[in-house]
Amino acid sequence: MVKLKGFQKLTFTYEALQTWLKALQIEKCRDVTIPLTEAFNYVTAEDIVANEDLPRFDRSAVDGYAVNAADTTGTSQTKPLLFRLAEKDEIEETGPRQARQVWTGNPIPKGANAVVMLENTKKHNDKIEIWTQAAPYDNVSRKGEDVKKGEIAVEAGTRLNPYHLGLLAALGYIEVKVVQKPKIAIVSTGNELVPAGMERNPRQIYESNRIMLSAMCTELQTEPLDLGIAKDDIDEIAEKLQIGLKIADAVITTGGTSVGGLDLVPDAVNKIGKPGIIVHGVALRPGMPTALAVLEGKPVMVLSGNPVAAIVGFEVFARPLISKLQGMKKEEPRPTAKATLTRKVTAALGRKTFVRVRVYEKSGELFAEPVSARGSGAISTMTKGNGFVIVPENREGLAENETVTVHLYGSIEE
Amino acid sequence: MVKLKGFQKLTFTYEALQTWLKALQIEKCRDVTIPLTEAFNYVTAEDIVANEDLPRFDRSAVDGYAVNAADTTGTSQTKPLLFRLAEKDEIEETGPRQARQVWTGNPIPKGANAVVMLENTKKHNDKIEIWTQAAPYDNVSRKGEDVKKGEIAVEAGTRLNPYHLGLLAALGYIEVKVVQKPKIAIVSTGNELVPAGMERNPRQIYESNRIMLSAMCTELQTEPLDLGIAKDDIDEIAEKLQIGLKIADAVITTGGTSVGGLDLVPDAVNKIGKPGIIVHGVALRPGMPTALAVLEGKPVMVLSGNPVAAIVGFEVFARPLISKLQGMKKEEPRPTAKATLTRKVTAALGRKTFVRVRVYEKSGELFAEPVSARGSGAISTMTKGNGFVIVPENREGLAENETVTVHLYGSIEE
Repeated sequence: MVKLKGFQKLTFTYEALQTWLKALQIEKCRDVTIPLTEAFNYVTAEDIVANEDLPRFDRSAVDGYAVNAADTTGTSQTKPLLFRLAEKDEIEETGPRQARQVWTGNPIPKGANAVVMLENTKKHNDKIEIWTQAAPYDNVSRKGEDVKKGEIAVEAGTRLNPYHLGLLAALGYIEVKVVQKPKIAIVSTGNELVPAGMERNPRQIYESNRIMLSAMCTELQTEPLDLGIAKDDIDEIAEKLQIGLKIADAVITTGGTSVGGLDLVPDAVNKIGKPGIIVHGVALRPGMPTALAVLEGKPVMVLSGNPVAAIVGFEVFARPLISKLQGMKKEEPRPTAKATLTRKVTAALGRKTFVRVRVYEKSGELFAEPVSARGSGAISTMTKGNGFVIVPENREGLAENETVTVHLYGSIEE
Repeated sequence: MVKLKGFQKLTFTYEALQTWLKALQIEKCRDVTIPLTEAFNYVTAEDIVANEDLPRFDRSAVDGYAVNAADTTGTSQTKPLLFRLAEKDEIEETGPRQARQVWTGNPIPKGANAVVMLENTKKHNDKIEIWTQAAPYDNVSRKGEDVKKGEIAVEAGTRLNPYHLGLLAALGYIEVKVVQKPKIAIVSTGNELVPAGMERNPRQIYESNRIMLSAMCTELQTEPLDLGIAKDDIDEIAEKLQIGLKIADAVITTGGTSVGGLDLVPDAVNKIGKPGIIVHGVALRPGMPTALAVLEGKPVMVLSGNPVAAIVGFEVFARPLISKLQGMKKEEPRPTAKATLTRKVTAALGRKTFVRVRVYEKSGELFAEPVSARGSGAISTMTKGNGFVIVPENREGLAENETVTVHLYGSIEE
């Protein structure tokens, strides 16, 4: 715990997250069965078991001639064997050697168990000359070799990527049971805020956190619901929160964590009900005034009005929450990269510090350049960077040339 | 060049891509102005210039008292100076020292140029005791320190992430000129194909490439258009292609690159017009029978019917094409990870080989385990894996314990 004026103590982020998630009563959004064609990026609600073999029959992996492998014994380029072209879709076991023409993907005819590639054969009228020996199942895709009937094709808690959809379609699925997209209501607070493009007085600024947080929610496959802007007024904030609790699975507020010395949003939360605010003030930089609450069993996240602090609070608390609401087994991590820090960075001892960096490649090596700005709240540090370096609570900073792990939110330039 | 039966030669992938992109007449989709609220993940069509400073005024970065820094000279904890509480939103230059209370985000009053934090002050009625010296602009977010008026806030060719949207909203933008989402028409071909869940005869299989390729297009922020399934019939395929060329910016076919010894789709392409097929047969594994074409100035991509070969063909050719259609400066790379290969892999000398691997973390190190399957076409190798290792044309394979670069399509498990 770290002492700080204004907060009795700052809670370590890990402890804050655990306490909050434990207090939730609604753990996961409801299941819903949807068409497979709409299921991209949804998370599966149950194990999906293959109800047939894939492939459903032994099939040829090449263009060529299906044969009984035993019939090819002893053939060679200098001593090819002659096969009779089978007229029916079957290789007869008795009588002369038979071969049946097959194309890639064709079922292997009855009686055959291997395919000789076209280039190792020659056709003479109704006779086929074959000059390589085949072992059983040469050039054959075996029934069930991709997925066996009864096997789990896709596990519960899996985010469906295009390849899962392809596999499920190949197995004949047309619908899939998934977890509903969490609905997340977002409200911005502050007397100084005006919607972008509207008339402002000289003390007002354009509100920008709703569109940003909405896109952050969309990026994580949740559905953002815009509750608009609330004035710095406890009743107005409480009203918006109550609407959010009614229509959404979680509520995010931004701003009003510390206004004119007052904790407007935390006070509004606590006015609504119990348990209300569970954590207020976390050992995080930026993002210290973040508060976490539970109302009506649902999560409420009280983020700073400073855009970068709101981003970091979202990163630390909303990402794991959303994974949980989506029924995933664990949080989906951002991709990471190891890079050499181009210059020293100072951090806050006792707090988890998020440093924005721009990772770039030079001569095959990765470098992470801290994105500097005089103000730590500058949103341009996010747009100029492509990743975070997280400085742990027990370090005062990072050294120049230190190898750091970068959590990437953008692609790396060469 | 590599010789192979059925193709006069195989074209190296890099050469194939360059030749194809060069032959296109339509290079980029059209620009369109859309609301900022809908612009997430679109690519900017022009540089977006800040039309005002951000912040628009010097503002306080903390809760405290705004002062003229010069007035604090000589103060200390043992010898605090007394300031008079300014009643107007201005620090008068003449007369006694003045301080004006400000909260985080408030404009700095006229005549003040620094803010002393609340915890370094004490209020006595209308007097403020201040015990730390302030330098000019201490605790002040300067006008324009985030972005200066006239500066490029977001460059042309940038995919808009949530933070770009936040920045543009803060600058007052409500719309943005972006490149339209490329429309990509997809047609599957093959007599053996039946839509998932429909009646099949014993030789037929469920069609699965359309849903997979559609999701792959969606993933890259393009709009897939489903043209359905065409029989193995040149006229039927040509008809679908022509519809695709009419409604879409690019057409992808799958299957029919080599059916019963015939190149059905390439023949259908060439029947429609010039230049038609530009490359047929690439030094790629899987994905060798891929063909690239141009019709009516638009790109046509003829992918294998084998799902994994279709995925690899898409990876190598569709990804850079889509970046180009979207007006990006360069292809957006997948995230990569360096990992230790857990066992040896054989590849095809002379071809670029895509090996599916599952990257996992163990004791802080990353390992890449090749996902084995008897059949290289098994789509389950994709769903069990989370990345590709690309073996270059000049190598026959990779050694056990070799450090490899993995191109990730899924997150890494611990």
